[in-house]
Amino acid sequence: MLTFYSPAHQLHHATELKDGVLMPCFETPSRAETILARVREQGLGEVLPPGDYPAERYARVHTPRYVRFLEKAWGEWSATGRRHDALPLIWPVRDMRSDIEPEYIDGKLGFYAMDAGVAITAGTWEAVRGSANLALTGMDRLSAGGQDSAFALCRPPGHHAAAEYMGGYCYLNNAAIAAQAGLDAGARRIAILDVDFHHGNGSQSIFYSRPDVLFASIHGDPKRSYPYFLGHADEKGHGPGEGFNHNYPLPHGTDWYGYRTALEHAGRTIATYAPDVVVVSLGVDTFKDDPISHFKLGNEDYLRMGAAIAAIGRPTLFVMEGGYWVDDIGVNAVNVLSGFEAAR
Amino acid sequence: MLTFYSPAHQLHHATELKDGVLMPCFETPSRAETILARVREQGLGEVLPPGDYPAERYARVHTPRYVRFLEKAWGEWSATGRRHDALPLIWPVRDMRSDIEPEYIDGKLGFYAMDAGVAITAGTWEAVRGSANLALTGMDRLSAGGQDSAFALCRPPGHHAAAEYMGGYCYLNNAAIAAQAGLDAGARRIAILDVDFHHGNGSQSIFYSRPDVLFASIHGDPKRSYPYFLGHADEKGHGPGEGFNHNYPLPHGTDWYGYRTALEHAGRTIATYAPDVVVVSLGVDTFKDDPISHFKLGNEDYLRMGAAIAAIGRPTLFVMEGGYWVDDIGVNAVNVLSGFEAAR
Repeated sequence: MLTFYSPAHQLHHATELKDGVLMPCFETPSRAETILARVREQGLGEVLPPGDYPAERYARVHTPRYVRFLEKAWGEWSATGRRHDALPLIWPVRDMRSDIEPEYIDGKLGFYAMDAGVAITAGTWEAVRGSANLALTGMDRLSAGGQDSAFALCRPPGHHAAAEYMGGYCYLNNAAIAAQAGLDAGARRIAILDVDFHHGNGSQSIFYSRPDVLFASIHGDPKRSYPYFLGHADEKGHGPGEGFNHNYPLPHGTDWYGYRTALEHAGRTIATYAPDVVVVSLGVDTFKDDPISHFKLGNEDYLRMGAAIAAIGRPTLFVMEGGYWVDDIGVNAVNVLSGFEAAR
Repeated sequence: MLTFYSPAHQLHHATELKDGVLMPCFETPSRAETILARVREQGLGEVLPPGDYPAERYARVHTPRYVRFLEKAWGEWSATGRRHDALPLIWPVRDMRSDIEPEYIDGKLGFYAMDAGVAITAGTWEAVRGSANLALTGMDRLSAGGQDSAFALCRPPGHHAAAEYMGGYCYLNNAAIAAQAGLDAGARRIAILDVDFHHGNGSQSIFYSRPDVLFASIHGDPKRSYPYFLGHADEKGHGPGEGFNHNYPLPHGTDWYGYRTALEHAGRTIATYAPDVVVVSLGVDTFKDDPISHFKLGNEDYLRMGAAIAAIGRPTLFVMEGGYWVDDIGVNAVNVLSGFEAAR
């Protein structure tokens, strides 16, 4: 399997608000480096750099003003004389207005965010667009034919980012950008399977009213787990998208035996949909030792997960999302890929 | 003029997220103490303690589950072993859901917040309800007759708090609770005049669809000023409340000459409405040296502001809101009250 990787991700290393204090993000550069080392150690296949893409490609699923904001935010923030990471501090909740973009950077940061886990630093934009370009390159290779799977080693991750807001360490939605690129290259239907512990609220939101991208997510029940405000089982899609959104919220402590049932159900749903490509939002924070998640999967379970994804039987693009127990992130992520390959 | 004060506010002294770092809130206990000292120094009148009120009184303008959350939040947070101030970290923006209350405290904190300036500490609830009780006591004294003005020296402030969310140092909306209490005691119409630098988004939100409380606010234009997502001139009220909401967004650098025009217009609008009581959300962060605001009023201008409010000619309850330049907060706040009394 081809792996797409870029060192641009190292430009992004930020702080987050958690437990009432600011701390270095759990989402660290070492995550991607550990996975890359494991890819090489296991001889998964060639490691290739991404192509370059114009921002218009990101704006196929994000709004142009949001993409422009991401590009300009650090410049506007640092122009005010501040040197700490740019963090949002107020958000347009409930009956507050999301229509008028504020002119001042502090307002813009909140206007385009859903949480305080998406600091913007001097290197964030380069890392973010590098990450999206990996997903685009991976999809382009699948669309060109000759490959039936690829791995975009994305960092920062993307699945929490919606059309017009960032959140949960995510800025551009790499999986959604790739799915749209697949459609733009001629695919009729794409399915996104999100196996990250956290609900992929951004991916759901982007495609919620569309029948051409099916979204299925297996995740910690939002009643008790981040992102809290999306990911319930009754969210089935809207309008023409109704019936094409499938959430599998599972309780804290879920192990492979509980997980497998949901995964197999999601796999059958996707197989029936018969997509031209499956995009897997690959988070391995379902691991038993993950410091900010609450499932109980073991190393070997990720081999089984790969096999279950292979059983869907469609060309598959893996897009890296979360996973914060760095000691095992390489083993677990590559186990999914190896399990997938072994079962094909 | 009677002043209502309680030392309970001293139990609340929190941290906020600002400029990308956590810092002690600009909203400090010394603010209220400085105003109290000036009230006494100027011989404004008797200083009285608040009455006690059941939480149901707050739930006349807030949702019962929100009031319950405020009461229980610190206990739920500290039960998880965390000792830092409880700060929200994710918010239900845009298409995220605001209907299902999360079960876990981290989710609840975001569910009921609009920003990261409303930390909850061990003493927050006692301070917050003490503050609301001051406003209730002030309104009760006006409703009972025999007084035509009173000053509720509230802290924490209240005008950013809406029916179901906290924000901007505000937890319970003291002015809104007082306005509702006035109606409940027999008033037919109440007007809220908000002269804080920051738009009183919570008060607007609570009464936006009602004709029995007119809301008028003079504030920094939300395009460049907190709270960014409400306070535009085109927000006129909704349904039966249409025509009873008046925003006067003014540019950074506005001095008394610019401010006076808006204040006089708001005063005439309120006089025409002929309310039984005027509730003034009294922020003095319009002062030229305020560290987080951008108007240019001087000490003497607050005497003029008090006279302009007196010209409305209705019984008036002053409810303390913001003002962060502590050196002058006592002079400026009491100047409004003295200017009001001198002009009556």
